[in-house]
Parts: sequence; C-alpha cells; structure tokens
Amino acid sequence: MTKKVITFGEVMMRLSPPGYEKFSQASSFELVYGGGEANVAISCAYLGMKAAHVTRFPNNALGKAATQFLRKHWLSTEHVIYGDDMIGKYFLEKGAVHRPSQVIYEREGSSFSLIEPSMVNWEDVLKDADWFHWTGITPAISEGAARCCLDAIKTANKMGITVSGDINSRSNMWKYGKTMQEVIPNLVENCDVVITSSNGIREMFGLGEAEDKFQFLAKRLIDVYPNVKKVIKKTRRTISASHHQIQGKLWNGEKYIKTDMLNITHIIDRVGTGDAFAAGLIYGLLHYEDKQALDFASAACALKHTVPGDVNIVSLENVQNLMEGDTSGALRR
Amino acid sequence: MTKKVITFGEVMMRLSPPGYEKFSQASSFELVYGGGEANVAISCAYLGMKAAHVTRFPNNALGKAATQFLRKHWLSTEHVIYGDDMIGKYFLEKGAVHRPSQVIYEREGSSFSLIEPSMVNWEDVLKDADWFHWTGITPAISEGAARCCLDAIKTANKMGITVSGDINSRSNMWKYGKTMQEVIPNLVENCDVVITSSNGIREMFGLGEAEDKFQFLAKRLIDVYPNVKKVIKKTRRTISASHHQIQGKLWNGEKYIKTDMLNITHIIDRVGTGDAFAAGLIYGLLHYEDKQALDFASAACALKHTVPGDVNIVSLENVQNLMEGDTSGALRR
Amino acid sequence: MTKKVITFGEVMMRLSPPGYEKFSQASSFELVYGGGEANVAISCAYLGMKAAHVTRFPNNALGKAATQFLRKHWLSTEHVIYGDDMIGKYFLEKGAVHRPSQVIYEREGSSFSLIEPSMVNWEDVLKDADWFHWTGITPAISEGAARCCLDAIKTANKMGITVSGDINSRSNMWKYGKTMQEVIPNLVENCDVVITSSNGIREMFGLGEAEDKFQFLAKRLIDVYPNVKKVIKKTRRTISASHHQIQGKLWNGEKYIKTDMLNITHIIDRVGTGDAFAAGLIYGLLHYEDKQALDFASAACALKHTVPGDVNIVSLENVQNLMEGDTSGALRR
Amino acid sequence: MTKKVITFGEVMMRLSPPGYEKFSQASSFELVYGGGEANVAISCAYLGMKAAHVTRFPNNALGKAATQFLRKHWLSTEHVIYGDDMIGKYFLEKGAVHRPSQVIYEREGSSFSLIEPSMVNWEDVLKDADWFHWTGITPAISEGAARCCLDAIKTANKMGITVSGDINSRSNMWKYGKTMQEVIPNLVENCDVVITSSNGIREMFGLGEAEDKFQFLAKRLIDVYPNVKKVIKKTRRTISASHHQIQGKLWNGEKYIKTDMLNITHIIDRVGTGDAFAAGLIYGLLHYEDKQALDFASAACALKHTVPGDVNIVSLENVQNLMEGDTSGALRR
Amino acid sequence: MTKKVITFGEVMMRLSPPGYEKFSQASSFELVYGGGEANVAISCAYLGMKAAHVTRFPNNALGKAATQFLRKHWLSTEHVIYGDDMIGKYFLEKGAVHRPSQVIYEREGSSFSLIEPSMVNWEDVLKDADWFHWTGITPAISEGAARCCLDAIKTANKMGITVSGDINSRSNMWKYGKTMQEVIPNLVENCDVVITSSNGIREMFGLGEAEDKFQFLAKRLIDVYPNVKKVIKKTRRTISASHHQIQGKLWNGEKYIKTDMLNITHIIDRVGTGDAFAAGLIYGLLHYEDKQALDFASAACALKHTVPGDVNIVSLENVQNLMEGDTSGALRR
Amino acid sequence: MTKKVITFGEVMMRLSPPGYEKFSQASSFELVYGGGEANVAISCAYLGMKAAHVTRFPNNALGKAATQFLRKHWLSTEHVIYGDDMIGKYFLEKGAVHRPSQVIYEREGSSFSLIEPSMVNWEDVLKDADWFHWTGITPAISEGAARCCLDAIKTANKMGITVSGDINSRSNMWKYGKTMQEVIPNLVENCDVVITSSNGIREMFGLGEAEDKFQFLAKRLIDVYPNVKKVIKKTRRTISASHHQIQGKLWNGEKYIKTDMLNITHIIDRVGTGDAFAAGLIYGLLHYEDKQALDFASAACALKHTVPGDVNIVSLENVQNLMEGDTSGALRR
Repeated sequence: MTKKVITFGEVMMRLSPPGYEKFSQASSFELVYGGGEANVAISCAYLGMKAAHVTRFPNNALGKAATQFLRKHWLSTEHVIYGDDMIGKYFLEKGAVHRPSQVIYEREGSSFSLIEPSMVNWEDVLKDADWFHWTGITPAISEGAARCCLDAIKTANKMGITVSGDINSRSNMWKYGKTMQEVIPNLVENCDVVITSSNGIREMFGLGEAEDKFQFLAKRLIDVYPNVKKVIKKTRRTISASHHQIQGKLWNGEKYIKTDMLNITHIIDRVGTGDAFAAGLIYGLLHYEDKQALDFASAACALKHTVPGDVNIVSLENVQNLMEGDTSGALRR
Repeated sequence: MTKKVITFGEVMMRLSPPGYEKFSQASSFELVYGGGEANVAISCAYLGMKAAHVTRFPNNALGKAATQFLRKHWLSTEHVIYGDDMIGKYFLEKGAVHRPSQVIYEREGSSFSLIEPSMVNWEDVLKDADWFHWTGITPAISEGAARCCLDAIKTANKMGITVSGDINSRSNMWKYGKTMQEVIPNLVENCDVVITSSNGIREMFGLGEAEDKFQFLAKRLIDVYPNVKKVIKKTRRTISASHHQIQGKLWNGEKYIKTDMLNITHIIDRVGTGDAFAAGLIYGLLHYEDKQALDFASAACALKHTVPGDVNIVSLENVQNLMEGDTSGALRR
Repeated sequence: MTKKVITFGEVMMRLSPPGYEKFSQASSFELVYGGGEANVAISCAYLGMKAAHVTRFPNNALGKAATQFLRKHWLSTEHVIYGDDMIGKYFLEKGAVHRPSQVIYEREGSSFSLIEPSMVNWEDVLKDADWFHWTGITPAISEGAARCCLDAIKTANKMGITVSGDINSRSNMWKYGKTMQEVIPNLVENCDVVITSSNGIREMFGLGEAEDKFQFLAKRLIDVYPNVKKVIKKTRRTISASHHQIQGKLWNGEKYIKTDMLNITHIIDRVGTGDAFAAGLIYGLLHYEDKQALDFASAACALKHTVPGDVNIVSLENVQNLMEGDTSGALRR
Repeated sequence: MTKKVITFGEVMMRLSPPGYEKFSQASSFELVYGGGEANVAISCAYLGMKAAHVTRFPNNALGKAATQFLRKHWLSTEHVIYGDDMIGKYFLEKGAVHRPSQVIYEREGSSFSLIEPSMVNWEDVLKDADWFHWTGITPAISEGAARCCLDAIKTANKMGITVSGDINSRSNMWKYGKTMQEVIPNLVENCDVVITSSNGIREMFGLGEAEDKFQFLAKRLIDVYPNVKKVIKKTRRTISASHHQIQGKLWNGEKYIKTDMLNITHIIDRVGTGDAFAAGLIYGLLHYEDKQALDFASAACALKHTVPGDVNIVSLENVQNLMEGDTSGALRR
Repeated sequence: MTKKVITFGEVMMRLSPPGYEKFSQASSFELVYGGGEANVAISCAYLGMKAAHVTRFPNNALGKAATQFLRKHWLSTEHVIYGDDMIGKYFLEKGAVHRPSQVIYEREGSSFSLIEPSMVNWEDVLKDADWFHWTGITPAISEGAARCCLDAIKTANKMGITVSGDINSRSNMWKYGKTMQEVIPNLVENCDVVITSSNGIREMFGLGEAEDKFQFLAKRLIDVYPNVKKVIKKTRRTISASHHQIQGKLWNGEKYIKTDMLNITHIIDRVGTGDAFAAGLIYGLLHYEDKQALDFASAACALKHTVPGDVNIVSLENVQNLMEGDTSGALRR
Repeated sequence: MTKKVITFGEVMMRLSPPGYEKFSQASSFELVYGGGEANVAISCAYLGMKAAHVTRFPNNALGKAATQFLRKHWLSTEHVIYGDDMIGKYFLEKGAVHRPSQVIYEREGSSFSLIEPSMVNWEDVLKDADWFHWTGITPAISEGAARCCLDAIKTANKMGITVSGDINSRSNMWKYGKTMQEVIPNLVENCDVVITSSNGIREMFGLGEAEDKFQFLAKRLIDVYPNVKKVIKKTRRTISASHHQIQGKLWNGEKYIKTDMLNITHIIDRVGTGDAFAAGLIYGLLHYEDKQALDFASAACALKHTVPGDVNIVSLENVQNLMEGDTSGALRR
C-alpha cells in the first residue's frame, strides 16, 4: 500500500537571477518555492508516496500562489494555514567553480514565523500517515514554530508514526531567545531516525570530542537518546561550486554502513540536495534494507544536483537506476 | 544653470509577473525599483536636472543593487544609508480593461522604516540644492521617517530651498500610532508647493465641506497655511484599466488654471504617473510660467503611462512636444 | 456550504508563439493547457467552488504535466485516467485588429479520443457533486467520448445533480461517422441548463426558421425538451480581433432576460471566454437569481478577455465588482 | 503562372528593446532584419509570388545570418553579394500613445553602401522576372548604390519588365554629394509605377504648388514623365503612436481612385507598413483591376501594423478577406 | 565543383523545456526542427556542399514553418511534399551528469508516415546529385516510407550516385507489421557506404557472434553485400550525461582505421551527434582519403555536442582545425 | 584612504546570442557593454576603490545607455565625451569544449576612434587619482586615440600618478598607418607597471630571442626602459573552451615571482579575464606586497571566468578567500 509522509516547516519564495547572473546584473528573478521539509514531501511524492505539508502563508495572492506550487508538485495542501502578511523569502545567486553561490534570507516576521500551536490539529493532520519528518530549521525560526514541532512529534509518537529529524548545527539562525542546545534535544529524544553531522552531534548535544569520528558519535547519540534507532550522515566533498562528491553513512545501532562516493561533475543546482537525501532515506527505509536505503538516498541526493529549483522531481526509475550503479546518464527514448 | 532637486523616501523592489500574467501564473518576476520620491528625482534627472535621493537600504547585495538602479538612472547616491536587513517590496499584477491591477506591499520592518533622524545630515545633503520634494507616504511609514522628513523641510526652509509635498489621504497606511491629521499639517505648513486632492484637503486638514470644489479648497488651504504658494491637483478619469484621462489644475493664490484633458488610450504602466506629474511640475515651475508649468506636468504625466516601470524616463523633447500639442506620437528617425 | 462541480472533456496542450508573433516567426512556444470543460471547472474553483475534472491523458511525463496544471489551478484530479500515447494539442497564433487569431488542432488519435465508457465509474465521480457540466465538443471527438458523456448525464440525472451543456454547432468537427443531429439531442434532453446559439438551435435540433430570434428559439427548445429549464446565449460582437462586445441572454421558461453590453476594448486573450461565461453561469445560478446570475456570467466572460491562457483565474471579488457596474478597472492596493 | 518580383536595396540588422522598453532600460535586443525593398519582396513571397532580393552583406557570420533570414522568409538569395565588414543597422524603440517610436540608424560605411555597379549582372538577375521594384532610399545611400539602381531600371526596361519605385522626400538622407533632385528624376523617368506623396512630387520634381492636391500633382508627374502609368499615394492619419488610419489613392492617367479608410486601433509594429502597401500594390496590379489592386494594397498595409518585425508575413487569404471588407479579425479554427 | 547531397526522411518539430528544466517544470518549449537525414543535409550545407532534403509536412502553417527552418539552414526545399494534418514531434528533456535526457516521440499518423512512393519523382530529385543518404529510421516508420526509400536507392544506383545508409538496430520502432530483418538487408545491398554498429550487424543481418569485434563483423558484411565498399562505426563512451568520448572506426575492404578518441567534457546538446558524424563522413569521403575522412567525421561529431539543437551548424574551418588536432577551442577574433 | 584609478579607452556595445546559440540561430542578442580599460575600472570599483573612466560615445540614446551601464557599475562618468554617431560594437558567440568562441568587431569609424587630444583635459581628469591605466588596444584604434593616451601618461607622470599599461602584440589591429613598434615603446617608457607577454616583448620592442623565457625578457625590458618597475605576465593554458588554467608571473627588478596555477574547470565567460587580472594587480599592488598582489590578481582573474559579461563584479571578499586558497566555492548564507 502507498505510504504517506507528513512534513512541517516554512516554505519560502525563492528568487534567483537567471543563469549565472549576479544580483547586481539581474533585471528579473526566476520564481520557485522551497523549504527543507516541503522539499522532502515533494521528493517523496515524485517517488510515488502520498505526501502532505503543513505550513502557514499570508492570506493573499502570493500565499495562494505558494500553495499552488505545492499542489502542482503533488502535495496535499488541505492543512495549509493562512494569516498575516509576509511570505518568507530567499534570494539565490548561483556560483560556479571558485565563485560561491550566495543566499540572502528574508524570513523575519513571516506568516510562518508567527504560527501558534493552536493553529494545527495534529491528530487530524497525521491521520493515515506513516511517517512524520521535521528539520532543525523549524524550531530555530520562532518559539511558536518550535512548540508546533514538538506537538507534532509527540502526537506522532502517540499515533505510532515513525519520526525523522534532519538537524544541523546553525547557531546563527537562533535569534528568538532560546539556544539550539535548549530546544533540539527535546525534539530529538522522540525521533526514530536522525540525520545530522559529526559537528551537529558535538555542538547540539554536547557529545564526543573534536577528534571523534561519526561512527563513534552516532553510537553516543543512540546511547543517550535510546528512542533513536538510526543515525545518518551525508558527507559532501566540495571540490568547487561546480563539482561535489557525495557519500552516505549510517549507524543503525548494530552496523556502520557507507555508500560509494558519487561524483557530481557538472552541478546545475545544489540547493535542496540534503532534502533529496532525506526524502530518499524515508522512501528507502520504508521499502528497502538499510544498505539499499542508504544507496537510494545517496542516489536521490546526487540526482538533485542536476535539477533546477529546490525540489527533487526525478522519477523513482531514475533513482533506482543510479542506485544500481548506472552512472552513465545515457539518453532514454 | 542646471537646477538640483533633492528627494527623500523609501525605494522598493518591485516584482511583477511578465506581461499580463496573474500572480498565480508567474514563474518569474520582472525586477525594477521604485518609490514616489525617487521616481520624481529620476524624472527630473531625465529632464536634464541634477538630482539626488536620500534613502536607506539593507547592507547587502540587494541594497547595493537598488542603489545601482538609482545610479543607472542618473541619480546621485552619495547620501544613501545602509543598515538592517530587509528592502521594502511591492508586487504588481498588471490589469487590463475591466480587470484592475493589483498591488501587494511588503514594507513593514524595512531598512527605510527603521531610519532615525540622526542618520542624515540635511545641511550637507541640501547644499547646492534648489528644490526639496517629499510625499505623504514617508511620514506614514514610521515615526523615524516622519521626523527625518520634518528635519529636511525645516533645514530646506532655513537654507531658502523651495519645498514641495505630494500628499494624499491614505489613512490605512498609518499604523505606527499617529494619525495623518496629527502629522501632515506640521509638514505642510512649511511647504511652498502642495500637490493634493480635494478629498485630501478635507480629510487631512479638516477644511471645507463635501460639496466644495478644488478651487475653493485650495484657497482655504493657502488661507490657513500662508507659506504655501501654489496648490495643485491632478484629475484622473479611469475609463478602464487600459484607458485613462488626465488633467492638471492649479491655484496660485491669484489664478485658477486648468490644462486640456489628455487621453491615454493604450496604457502600458500606470504606476508612477503621479510622480511623473510632480516631477514635471518641479521642472515646469523652475523653467516656465504657471500655465506652461502645468501643461508640462500634465504632458509628463501622460507620457509616463506609456513607459514600463515606475519611473518616467522620457526626454525633455518628448514632454515639450506633447506640451505644445503634438499628440500624434509620430515616429522619430 | 461550498458547492462542487464536475466536468468532463479533453484537455489539450496549448502551444502559442510569444506575444503577437506568427507561426513562421516563433522560436519558442508558450505552454499552457486548456479545454472547454476543464476551463469551466478551473473558473469555478477560482470563484471558490470545489471542482473536479474527468479526462484521459497519455501515461507519460507529458500526461503527468497536464494533470499538474489542473492540480495547480485547484482542481481535484483523482479521476484522471492514463493510457495511450498522445496528448491532444492546439496551436494558437494570436491576432490583433484586422488580423485573425489562428488555431490549428491536433487531437486525432489522442488519449482522450480513445476513452471508453468502462474507464469511468460515474457514480463514484459524481458522489457529493452539485453540478455536472459538459460541452458539445466532447461527443464530437469520438464515439467512446460521446458514450461516456451520455453515461455521465444519465448518472447525474439519477443522482439528482443539475446538468448543464454548452453546445455549439460545429459540423466540421464530427468525423467519426455520426452527425451532431444524431447525437446531441439525446444528450440535451436530460439537461437542466443549455447554453447555445440561435444557429445551434436551428442546426442541431432542426427547430425554428432562419429569421427566428433567440427568444423564440429558446422557447421552442424547452417545448421540445421539457427537462431543460433555462436556455442561455452569449452574444459576441466582433469589432476587431482587439475589441469585442459581450452580452448575455437567458430564457427561463417565463422571462427573457438580457444584460447590458460589456465593451472589451483591449483584448489580451479571447480563448476560453465562452467557458468563463459558462462557469460564471454555473456559479451564478447556484448563488443568485437569474438576472444577477446572467450579469455575473457576463462579467466573468468579459474579465477572461484580459487574462492570458485558456482559463479564467480572476477572483470572485473581481467578478462581483464588475457585475455591480464598476467597469473602471481601478488599481487595487 | 506564378509571377516573379526582383527587389534591390540595403537590408539592415534591426535591434529593438523587448516590448515597450526604452533604450535606457534594455538588457537585450530582439533581432530581425529589414529594409524597404526586401520587405516588399518578402511580402510578395508570402502572397504566393516568386521573389528574389539583391543586396550586399559583410563576408562574415553576421552577413550569412542576414541572408538566412531572407531565405527563411522564402526569398531567393542567389544574387546576394558578400564583401567588406559592416552590416547596416537600425535600433528601434517602440512608442505608444503620445510617446513616439524612435529609430537610430547606423548605415554609414556598410557593406551595401560600398556596392559598385560592376558587382551585379542585372541581365542575369532579371531573367524570368515580371517586376522590378526599388525605393528612394537606395540612391540616397551612396553613388555606387544609385548607379546600380539606375542600371537595374534600364536593364528592366530593355527586358520589358515592369518597374515600380517607392520614393519619398528625405533630403537629410543625402550625404554623399548629390541631391535627390539631381538623382531621383533620372530613375523615375523609366518607371511604370510610382508610389510617392504630394510633398515628394513637389520637392523631388519641382512640380506643382504648396496648395495643389495629390490628384493634380499625380497628373503633372505623368505629364512630365510619360513612361509613368500610375501614381499612387498612401495617406496615413496618425491619431497616436497606437492608432493610425490608412487610405490608398491612385491616379492611372484616366481615373482617380480612393479606398475606404482603414482604422488600425491597436498597432503592434508600424515599421514596414509602407513596404507592405507597395507589395500589396505589386501583387494587386498583377492580379486585379486598379480599384481592387488599391484595396488589396491598403488591406495589406493595414494588416502589417499588427505583425511584429519589418515584414508583412500575413497570408493571401488574410489580405483578401480584409480587402473584401471583413474587418472583424474573427478567430480562424 | 561543389558536391550535392540528397537526403530523405521525417523532420520533426522538437519541443524542449528551457535549460535543464524537467517536463513538469516547463512553462514554455524551445522550438527547433530535426530528423536524422535532414540533420545530415544541413551539416553538409554548412560545410559548403549543396544539399536538398525530401520529406512530407502537413499542409498548414506548421508545415510551412518547418520548411522555413530547412530553408534558413541552407537546404533546397523544392521537393518537400505537403499533405495530411500532423507534423511528427519529439519532446526532449535535457539531462546532466547522472540524470538521463529523456525523449518522448509523437510520430504515429504524421504526414510523413503517410507518404506513398507515387508522391516522389526520384529521377527528378536526384538530378545533379553526387550522394544520396538515408537512415534506418525511415523504413521503420511505415511501409510507404520504406518503399520510397528503396525507390530512392535504386534510382540512385541507376544514376551512378553514391549511396550511404546509417542504420542502427532499434527493433522497438518497427510497428507496422514488418521486421527490420525483412526490410533493412534489401536496402543495404545497394549501398556503397554503411554506418552501423557491431550489434546492428549481428541483429539486422544475422552475421557474426556475440563476441565478434567490429573489424570482423564489417568484413563479414562486405562479404555478404559486395556492393558495400566501406563499413563505419562511431564508438561512444558515455561517462555521464555531461561527458562523452567519441571514436571513429572504418573498414574499407582493405584496411581497418581508427581515430584518436575525442573527449567532450561539457556537453551542450548530444542529439544529432550521430548525424553530424554521418555528414562529416560524406564530406570527408568526397574530399579526403579514408583516414582523414574518418578524422573529419569524428571532429564534426565532437563539435556537434557543443551546439544547441539537432543540427551541426559549425563551419568547415572549425571541423578542419579540430581534425588537425587543435582541441583548445581558443577564442577567434 | 580609498584609492582612485582612472582608465581610458573605448567601450563597446557587446551583443551575444543567448546561451550557446550560434550567430545563425539567434533571434535576440544579450546586451552589455565592455572594453579592456573600463573593465579594469569597474573591477576596481567592485573591490572598493574609486574609479572613473574616460571615453567617447555618440551623442544619442545609445551613447547615453552605455554611460548608464558604467554608472550602474559604480564608475564616475563625468569625463565621458559625446560626439559623432556610432558606438563601437562587438558580437560574441560563445563556444564550448572544442568549439571556439567567436568575436566579430565593428569599431571602425566609432565615436571613440574619432577622439582628439583637445577633447580631454587630463589635469582635470587625473586630479586626486592614484593610478592611471591604459591598454595596447587604445593606441591601435586611431592616431587621435594614441595621442590622447600619450598625453594622459605624460600628465600622470608629471602629477606623480602611477601608470600601468596592459599591452599585447596584435599587429592586425593596427590599420591607420602606424605600426605598434613605432607607437608602443613611446607609451611604455613612461610606465611604472607593464603587463605583457613574452611574445609581446619580442615583437613590440624587438628584445630577446625566440627561445628566451619571460623572466629573461622582463629583465631586458626594464634594462631598456628603466622607468618600468614591474613586468607582469598572465599565463593561460587553454585545455578547451570550457576549461582554462591561469598562473601569474612577475619580475620586479629583483625577484621573479609565480603563483600557483588556478584551474577553471567550468568557464561561464572568459571575456575580460585579462582585465580582471589587471584590476586585481592594481588593487593588489596598492594594498599588498608583490607576491600577495600577484596572488590577488590571479584569483580575481580566475573568478572572472565564472561571471557573465565583460566585467568582474565579484566582491573583495570573494577574491581574498580564493587568494588565501579556498577554491571550494562553498555556498554562502
């Protein structure tokens, strides 16, 4: 039976100069929408799952257009909330080779940041769901968003729904008076699957030392948070803005698993590749054993680098072919 | 000698779907910048005057790009201030015939709204200037902006610089705790030239009755604010979103002057047409007698309806030809 | 309670040269999707109704993209069927003034034309619906499509759902061996609301004479098909490709009603204006008395002329304002 | 049998800002090619005639691309000559309503201006031709061009080929040391058909007085140049840059003929409308009586106002429909 | 003397989303035309040969536009036939790195597929020709197309014109009731030059074993079809969708020749690269010895990977420089 | 204190087909402006310096638009001169891999080429400047330009302003009757910093032998022109049109310095990379020791390869990061 995933988080209007133009050259912006959690939901939908996203948009034509973007990309949007006046935004200038891509955020005071727990009925939202996914960005946005997220996780736990969190250590995002160390651990302790980094484990949970490797740190995390069953990391080697290498790592409490490195030699759009990995992992863990699930996630992540926009809209067949080792990208007729 | 005008106010990033697309159809936005006062300065610059604009932008690549737009269109930008994180924005969906154009503003919390009087040295800014122009939008944005505006007017008065204000009654813009009735009169009392509407005079100054005509109301305004030397109104007849008619009216304390009506049968972009009128008036009053000045202003206003973007970038020759009655728009080789 | 409309018919890929380019000038095509019945459903959805469309697309990425277009524009697409290989298409070259727009169809052998009655479970589709709408194009496409349409109408009758048909006389479309005179009357006899033309009544039903006016012909139609409760016509006066006039006419068995003529002086896209009228009529008849319903339909129709694409994506508020007589199209902030 | 027309003249690269952008706003130029005589040839080709154009382009990729434009639009280009380095250019900024379109030429030193009579073998070029057409622009460009033109006319005379000239009085174009009064009459005296204006007859030939009307002046021209059989004028009333009116007038030595006025209310591109008139006249005179020929020419001219680019690429059917009075521009399916 | 090549086959409208957009993201399609055999003719024309293409298009504006594309790219189109209603199409989604490009064909029922032998007079078409080229796609389209192709080959044989065929084994294309094994050998037996693959020789002709190399298989082909003088293969190594390697191989009955491998590290458009190879081979065999001809073909093929669209529009000089070993792509001023 | 650089030279309109289209495919041109010396000034301005450029444009809307481009990119344009009618142009077709980019110049007879020494008051221009930069292109354009350049250098010498020249050996540019050997040495003898190549030193100054390396040749140049303090060379290895390698070399009279090679694996736009190097060198020599200055220049040069257009609009921070060895191009948020 088709599995269903629910995600929760801010969706931003993404504005980018065409091609490789810099901000100072642009006379137009390409318009798409994106946000870590919705990106995951859309990826899952393209892989064949049912997917719904919970978010909050301004109650105007721009908020409606954002919802339409989610609908177009197969999401169920019945739980989108409307209120207040501003949609979160980010501006993306795309780099190449030695020139970094640059992102400017404008999310302060957005409709999503003003969300309150009372606005979402999680039992209703999570009915029929198999999986709930959140990221560490949401609790960093505002106290309301953090509390909503905690409610969602707790409700999912009660309803027996698997919970995954994709959390990275970005202390500069936390501006509303709480630190990530105060908030994140409470959210993680009720998760089944955690995607994070070595640094994340050290900084957010105070576990391990500078020299400890991921395998050790992942074990430590599970020791301290025994509900967590799998800890996963995506290693990225940044050769240049145009050429990355990707590898997945997973500790499932028993085995340490690594994928082969995938070599993305001509990057089209690297935004959302982490979300593609997370979506691949959700799909993978629901349909495969751990090693294959990790291969699937890495393949999905690698493919996202070649798709413009935030979301990984490749087909299940594309991911499976790459996961099985066909890196040739040979033309399909 | 070339005259110099100084303007002060917010400049917004303007984002519009291409052509006649609605917000829900857009996959890109055309990007220009605009704001009532900067629009006036740029118009004046294209007419051959010197012009500088004072504003405040975020200290990032988007703030720089906005400044570059002003520079490209001939403004002096040495008095632009940088700080905080958000540039004011408006989204414009262009209508036609019976379908209205729609504007969505996002200016709350913008860098400009956080301006403080201490950030501008008006004596320095106004050195060598012949004219200072402000609009009723600026004091509606924030207390800081209102106080800056008052400082500017008073400094201009001290330095013997002509002051014009373009003020309309938009009570729904006033959200920071003061009403327009509390703030606007103090600003107007030191102005030489006031562009407003019959309704504006009634609502902002409490002068006249519902049935009073502009000619009477303008007289009343000058009675109460004797520094004001001329009161001007632009009458717009909106036949459809694609067809407007424009007429200028002026009371100079002695004579009531009206222009012929100009018929704009195929509108390209009506935003900024009021600013084009104000700029035409400033240029006109500096170079012509009142009747001609008003003809010039109306011609400039009419021409703006045919120029995409906020700013009236037609040439002095274009305005003069239309002002002299050549409405044919015949091809120039 | 929100009303729900179901529509059934082919959705075509629409390919048009940009702006006013002719086919021989195009180096790209603008891509949207459209079809008389889906256009009606989408219009209804933008007006605030629930709407689902039943159609058939090829089982490939192009068929999926067409579905995504419907989803984006708020339709429920759970009853879309996939099969065979070709999506129906039309190419549109946009005219102006004396130059006609030109349409080239490619719908022969399309996935929709190969639809069979067994592919749709109408009881399931029409569950919870308040209205079913079809057009005369569908039975002209293929025998399968005609039989599906008849099934739908009969099921709707059984379930007590109002049925409307928008039928015009286009004999050159009927290529599969049946004539419109053989097929259309059977479909119409179970309809509640019929949108047609004087010519249509004469040619498809053999009623009336060449000189008979619509009012008389509409009465005749109801005489012969007593289930029909209202007969409606949209009169279009084509002054040029850029300027049309629109008027609605309705006979409800008791009264003959006409709207004022609406004057669309600057047409942006006239395709789908009849569908906008039909959608306006459905919304109107569900929410207003007949005269207002007809005013609403005419206003919706007029507004569509200013929206690019096949579908009328204006807001309820836009239609209501025009219906109440505000033809000014004045800017909304 | 299909008739064949030969034309001779400069073809320029035309660069225009998109839509209604002014030069100072453009970040790209739309690229087409055009020139009075080639425009005539292409129009004739779209009407179904054979057509070849003689010109000279630089011997580089830009010259080749210009030739490819002519080939694409059905011209025979076997007599195009290559040499020197610069292609003539014009920049076009499109106006609207009261704002004039603006043209900037760059044709000095172009490959065409350096043409020499020895470069063209007119007997070879004109073999099988029925008509030769030139305009008054060519002899204004350079002495070499003027001499080539005279050779062409004389060869056509010898070979019994009808010759038409479209000549206007543009004294500011004559910069190489000769005046139009010295050159034009020699060219006209061997023409069969002359398209010109009242002013043109007065200024170029010194015939008639300021108050003389076209009918009288045309007669005078034929008196003095008895080889000329028909004198034609296109009257344009410029209501605004967006709205023109067109009427044809013809004196054939016996009768004075006028067409009804055509009202072009929404101009898309007025460049090349005179050439469309000339092409319509050539086609018309080859296929109809004089009155119909003039109607045909006027209809072709009116239609060109709705086609982007320099050339009138409408179909024979379009012109015939308008010529027969169908001004409705009603959609063709 | 300039050599002339004739080609025969379907030309399709090619519709592709801009840049790297996927089908589900496109709101426009880039429009070009292409087809294996016409691609060869156009390549030859850009290299300086005369070239004509025989095909069949619908008798409407789209068929005319397709012809205009061929004319623009220097082909003679006097033998294009018009009839029926649909132009063959293909949709191309461009991949990158691990993401494959995807092609969706719509050619069933196209005007070309309905071609009949009686529609082409091959003696007339082949008059003055030096070379006739066909591909294995044409006989797979329909029985009519296959018979036309055979007629062409036989007529060419009679007239002493060299014949080349580019045939690959694509059994899934054969849908009209014949297999490739039934049809292809009859066509090949009268060819002088065959471009194919090892697999092709095994599957289409039943020659050789799975482990046999190209050199051996080519010999076998010539043994069985003694009219064939040269058998050529292009080896492609697909490192990723963005990076291919190309090598040419040739058996001329006496010698086995191989080129150095060319490394195309940043692919722009790989469609039509095989056709560029075939065109290079035709030009090469007409102007060089076999080894140089093969180098020329490989260079032409490599260059095509960097040109958007189906056709290889690089210059003779470009190919010669690369053929002589200059792989630097250094800027030409 | 912020340093100020003055540059002098022609600025051309640059017209390029979009993306990788060839000239024969273009239906539009992307429009920017560029010229070696202005490119240097703009780069310096983006790095934080004050910068003014001296040039001459036609006195029309195109000349104004070119000035506006310079203003937008932060240059002071008060010394731009207007006169005559043509702006210099170049057309750029962008290559990839083995396909070279192609440039076609049209600068003969341009407004700049007609400049005369009397048109510039160098003492006024150079007031407050720290550096004057010229290139070897300027004296090749016309005698007037060469004399202006010499005046500028001599005035700079008198005013104690550092002078740099970027001179390459392009004998085919010299068409006005003087050779580069006659003109260049007089200009170089008063320079402080010379950027050139080994070949340049041999051909322009007749120094050294074919086999002499740069280090030796640079020494020789300083021996003969003792005012020259530093001789610099940028080595470019052209692996393909898409992949270059860059290395800087400098002889300062005492030490021979080389940078590490930078590997630009995915070139976006290579035009202006030499100018970016020169600008980096100017900034570097004004703010760092020689080794760091050369590292800075090489980093600036490498980054320019990733920026569309002629000018290097990257930030100081971008250059410093690369100069310090961060080649990763990792995303900045």
